[in-house]
Amino acid sequence: MEDADSSHQEYIIRREVLDESRLDVVAQKGKWTHKPTVGERMKEMLRCSVPRLKDIVLTWIPVLAWLPKYPFRENIIGDLISGCSVGIMHLPQGMAYALLASLRPVLGLYSSLYPVLVYFIFGTSRHISVGTFAVISIMVGSVTEKLAPDSSFYVNGTNGTEGLDITARDSYRTQVACSLTVLAGIFQILLGVVRFGFVVTYLSEPLVRGYTTASACHVCVSQLKYLFGVTPDRFTGPLSLIYTIVDICKLLPQTRVPELVVSLVSLTILIIVKEINGCYRRKLPLPIPIELIVVVGATIITYFCGLRSEYLVDVVGEIPSGLKVPRAPDTTLFSKIIGDAFAVAIVGYAISISLGKTFGLKHGYKVDSNQELVAIGLCNAIGGFFRCYAVTSSLSRSLVQESTGGKTQVAGVVSSVIVLITVLKIGSLFEDLPKAVLSTIVFVNLKGMFKQFMDVPLLWRTNKVDLLVWLVTFVSTILLNLDMGLAVSIGFSILTVIFKTQLPRYSILGNVPGTDLYLDIEAYKEAKEIPGIKIFRSSATINFTNSEMYLESLQEKVSPSWFIFSFSDLICADKEKCMFKLNNRKNSQNGMVLSVTSTVPNLSGKGHVNWAYHADRITSDSDSDTYEDITAVSQSVEEWKNSNCRSGTHSIILDVSMTSSVDTVTVNTLKNIFRDFGDVGVAIYLAGCQGCVVEQMERANFFSESIPKNLLFVSVHDAVLHILEKQEKVEIDLPYDTQM
Amino acid sequence: MEDADSSHQEYIIRREVLDESRLDVVAQKGKWTHKPTVGERMKEMLRCSVPRLKDIVLTWIPVLAWLPKYPFRENIIGDLISGCSVGIMHLPQGMAYALLASLRPVLGLYSSLYPVLVYFIFGTSRHISVGTFAVISIMVGSVTEKLAPDSSFYVNGTNGTEGLDITARDSYRTQVACSLTVLAGIFQILLGVVRFGFVVTYLSEPLVRGYTTASACHVCVSQLKYLFGVTPDRFTGPLSLIYTIVDICKLLPQTRVPELVVSLVSLTILIIVKEINGCYRRKLPLPIPIELIVVVGATIITYFCGLRSEYLVDVVGEIPSGLKVPRAPDTTLFSKIIGDAFAVAIVGYAISISLGKTFGLKHGYKVDSNQELVAIGLCNAIGGFFRCYAVTSSLSRSLVQESTGGKTQVAGVVSSVIVLITVLKIGSLFEDLPKAVLSTIVFVNLKGMFKQFMDVPLLWRTNKVDLLVWLVTFVSTILLNLDMGLAVSIGFSILTVIFKTQLPRYSILGNVPGTDLYLDIEAYKEAKEIPGIKIFRSSATINFTNSEMYLESLQEKVSPSWFIFSFSDLICADKEKCMFKLNNRKNSQNGMVLSVTSTVPNLSGKGHVNWAYHADRITSDSDSDTYEDITAVSQSVEEWKNSNCRSGTHSIILDVSMTSSVDTVTVNTLKNIFRDFGDVGVAIYLAGCQGCVVEQMERANFFSESIPKNLLFVSVHDAVLHILEKQEKVEIDLPYDTQM
Repeated sequence: MEDADSSHQEYIIRREVLDESRLDVVAQKGKWTHKPTVGERMKEMLRCSVPRLKDIVLTWIPVLAWLPKYPFRENIIGDLISGCSVGIMHLPQGMAYALLASLRPVLGLYSSLYPVLVYFIFGTSRHISVGTFAVISIMVGSVTEKLAPDSSFYVNGTNGTEGLDITARDSYRTQVACSLTVLAGIFQILLGVVRFGFVVTYLSEPLVRGYTTASACHVCVSQLKYLFGVTPDRFTGPLSLIYTIVDICKLLPQTRVPELVVSLVSLTILIIVKEINGCYRRKLPLPIPIELIVVVGATIITYFCGLRSEYLVDVVGEIPSGLKVPRAPDTTLFSKIIGDAFAVAIVGYAISISLGKTFGLKHGYKVDSNQELVAIGLCNAIGGFFRCYAVTSSLSRSLVQESTGGKTQVAGVVSSVIVLITVLKIGSLFEDLPKAVLSTIVFVNLKGMFKQFMDVPLLWRTNKVDLLVWLVTFVSTILLNLDMGLAVSIGFSILTVIFKTQLPRYSILGNVPGTDLYLDIEAYKEAKEIPGIKIFRSSATINFTNSEMYLESLQEKVSPSWFIFSFSDLICADKEKCMFKLNNRKNSQNGMVLSVTSTVPNLSGKGHVNWAYHADRITSDSDSDTYEDITAVSQSVEEWKNSNCRSGTHSIILDVSMTSSVDTVTVNTLKNIFRDFGDVGVAIYLAGCQGCVVEQMERANFFSESIPKNLLFVSVHDAVLHILEKQEKVEIDLPYDTQM
Repeated sequence: MEDADSSHQEYIIRREVLDESRLDVVAQKGKWTHKPTVGERMKEMLRCSVPRLKDIVLTWIPVLAWLPKYPFRENIIGDLISGCSVGIMHLPQGMAYALLASLRPVLGLYSSLYPVLVYFIFGTSRHISVGTFAVISIMVGSVTEKLAPDSSFYVNGTNGTEGLDITARDSYRTQVACSLTVLAGIFQILLGVVRFGFVVTYLSEPLVRGYTTASACHVCVSQLKYLFGVTPDRFTGPLSLIYTIVDICKLLPQTRVPELVVSLVSLTILIIVKEINGCYRRKLPLPIPIELIVVVGATIITYFCGLRSEYLVDVVGEIPSGLKVPRAPDTTLFSKIIGDAFAVAIVGYAISISLGKTFGLKHGYKVDSNQELVAIGLCNAIGGFFRCYAVTSSLSRSLVQESTGGKTQVAGVVSSVIVLITVLKIGSLFEDLPKAVLSTIVFVNLKGMFKQFMDVPLLWRTNKVDLLVWLVTFVSTILLNLDMGLAVSIGFSILTVIFKTQLPRYSILGNVPGTDLYLDIEAYKEAKEIPGIKIFRSSATINFTNSEMYLESLQEKVSPSWFIFSFSDLICADKEKCMFKLNNRKNSQNGMVLSVTSTVPNLSGKGHVNWAYHADRITSDSDSDTYEDITAVSQSVEEWKNSNCRSGTHSIILDVSMTSSVDTVTVNTLKNIFRDFGDVGVAIYLAGCQGCVVEQMERANFFSESIPKNLLFVSVHDAVLHILEKQEKVEIDLPYDTQM
């Protein structure tokens, strides 16, 4: 080596540092143990959140912190305008989404009223608009239709004909929806209180986008019946989406023309004006409230043209004025809806927090995940008593709330007031509104979600694993519906993390001359292997899922240049002599090991090496050597003689810097590596062990007399320098030249 | 710095290396892309396994490879003795375990006969003894009793009394067990053919040990009825174990004394002789075949003392002599047993391969996971036609096979011959054997599994996560039975891997003076932070489950010494002036950033920092600054003035060497970090990026004009040297002294 001197000097410095650091390892063990366990994290979180009574109150009820300091003059105008715009959006959306949830439209209005007020008190995001949302509505709808199908409410009329008891059905559906909402709210509050907001991280971005896209398809299909004015059968369970589409196609000849016309007209108007809103976003002070205009217009036209009586267009029907007294949910339903409630809780929160975080990042304030969970949970739990169904924040309304100058949740209060006035005074005016118009409002609001289909080509180019997550989520949600689909998607998305640990890249590292960099010899042509030393690294952490692969890959990577064949059969015909040789080699452990046991190239067809790790067992096993093809072994010897690599491997450095924690299986695998290679006289060193890993190994009794702690090195370079120094001392003993 | 000169020289070398290496990165992209995908792995595996026809045949039918070379003289004695010992064990165990599977004893004998012969042909392990095993037997038993309960076979006798049609019941149970066995075998063969042997790695050691311990409890409880001679009700579903125990306790007063006496006597004899076998293992040439002796003795005593007729002791009953013709399984049952069959397939393989690998390692031969899967699958699939039920390898028999000198599977053939003789000629002699005796044989063979309870204190000391896996597996298997318990356990064990990625240790690294080592400043006291440069590392890979935590931790770790508070409010009362300052600072990006936005220490109670990343948005957001307590800010200023750390952070190095692959969420998080810190004038560098990660980032369009590729450094030290060099050039512009 050209700069052996400086290298040696450096080595001395390193050794000192290393030794001191090692002492530190012992001295600072107390410090090292402070990697927080789950319990400690919880404690720490609790400790942090319980500093003083005032802080507690302010943390749990954020409105007390910001409202007294509300800068009235600066914010009120923006909040008023924004509140009015959002309130105007709430009216048609609330009614339309209630239809989606198979509930009476007035429930959608309630859901746009109470939860917003609750969120005003407990929420930490200033810009999101809480209320009805398509995905959650369809989830609620699937439950209400499952537990209260039309078929259960056919009664014999007084004149003997069968009829649908709509009042009883709607009343029971309301009961189901409210119970579901309260239960989902309770789940959210509980998760928030135990600070489990992190569970939402399992809903990764591709998953949420695939899921919402699939939900949009479900929403679409569920609205087709209003568009065409047909009444398909109700299907449940897997593949119900497919069955519904087939049924609607069959019913197409029965399409009611008046409703189709109403739908197409309002759809055309909505799309055109929405496009105008989009194009002239910067020029318009407020977006045109086209949804409200269409609703009002359609109601007037229906009323004056007699669409309801003459053409039998299906309309919204009675909208009761005034508010209802709160009512407790039906707890007997809880056991039937627990799974759905959990799905609603998780999805609702996931949508809300992702919007909240986006706005928080944009406007520079902190949105507290756990407080958000509690806030949304309270919206649902309290709302459920007041005949609201599950809410979350809606992208379209939130964007309007932000873009029209809304600064705080005061805008939300303003929007509630508008909804309240509607419910109290003018709601009953909408009784003649055709349901088909509400459906078209749902349709046009799905545009954003269908745009997410563009994720597929994008993800194809950028990340195929995430594309797979997207597609699996989409397909499973389409086929298995919203609850089971979500479960399957989360399971799959978690499995991708596991699969990734099972496909690590194992590499042999080489030194970049003149530096202490050690890089993959296959990726960097500068990196040169150090003769006699193999540096082995896995690109992923080692755990029980891949420890066996680690062992196999190590054997595979190390063996080719370290030709192992049966000297015992060829050279030492005499068994006892061979045993003597082996024992001898074991005594001079630093010598090179050239021959240990036998390859059986023909047995497995892959040139697999048979590893007779235990030299003391070799006599019992050498019987099996007679199996093998004697010519193959001779060839191996020739190959070995001709190969440049005449120096064997005497040391292996395992770069375990990638490993962040070790489990029992990993510790046993490493122990086996140390024992097995040790038995054939190859020294193993561990480099780059993280502090926490060393500690876990200590607890697992990894270190012993045969695996002393001084085999640990802070970096690969330290280990290499140590081996080279050690080698210099024993160089005279070596029969071959190992130095280049 | 003392050795600035040498450091600079080193730097130049490094830069050159780095640049060349970077060129390599571009040049060798083709090489880098060769991290195998799943598809490629499969192809590679297939390619490897299809080299030549001869090799294929030898790989799939290993017996052709080793039997022609069988060293007759050397091995035959050992194999004969070992085969006889194992065959003698097969007889009582086969009958006892068949009872456990709720089948007639002769089926256990069949299962000890055919599968052994099949394994002889296809197996790669030389020492395992394939056949009946307690855990698998009880799994089969739970299915047979579920699908063919006693209650279905009560018939009205000719004299009007109800009676149990035992013949019909046993015949149907045999049908069920054989169908289950064939289906499990098909699963195993399929998994083996597509080379999915790796799935068994999900059954980590703590899981398998917890599961087998819980199975042993199930076995115990199921045998209690024979021990006491009572007939408890049959329970299914969760908690059935508990219900059965309660029912047996209730029935204790009805204990049949003759059977209890038989049980206790044989149990005592078995335990004592087993202990003697254990103590004198080294002195005895063969272990005493006490099980066979007890069986023979009990049969003779029962016959001559008339236990069956006088004391009504329940006996084995008719054992048909001779072999039956093969029969196809009932495929209509497949849909009912698919889940159980999969569980049997996985558990059977897991037990077999772990034993096989252990012996392989001990004796130095390779056991091929996938071929083993095929071999066990064929044992089951073929055996199922011949009225065998599911088999795996048994620890007790395999140990005897190895310790009595068995060298190859020829021993298995010898043992089959012994079983065959019994089935053909002397089986019918055992008709008077009391079932209670067979139960005691099952009991004593569970000793090894109950010893596994000692894992609990061991794991408590060594690895608490693995202890949790053990306990969750045990409890869920006890409470939810063997199929659901296994599913829950595997799910939990996989989740622990995910949880571990969610509890990384985030640390700030410091330089060890005189070296290029960068270590955690909290763990190593030598490590000193470089002024103005923060080096941030996560101990685990970054993926969607923890990318948000990564961002939060980065903000938290970087902020304390980099005091961010509202200059805008305190010093620049004039908003425009402030804006000017901010813009000015943005222009001189290399200057230090001392003040950006406001802390709101009282709002959250945790001193959280509000990150107003976008300087151009600060005017719109500074309204909210009025919320905050002015005194707190003044305090912050004082603190800052008094702190030693007057130099701000101008650069952050993210050491991402721990990250083995990036998903979309991670890329977005990193993009956000670059954008947000870039906006406040802090430069971000990535160090230690693995090749595959760089490639994934490229595909995800991570690099752009704002994030050029030259922000990537091979190591932290390179990044530091680069920053220091850059800093030297702009040092004159800096208002504060950043060099120590």
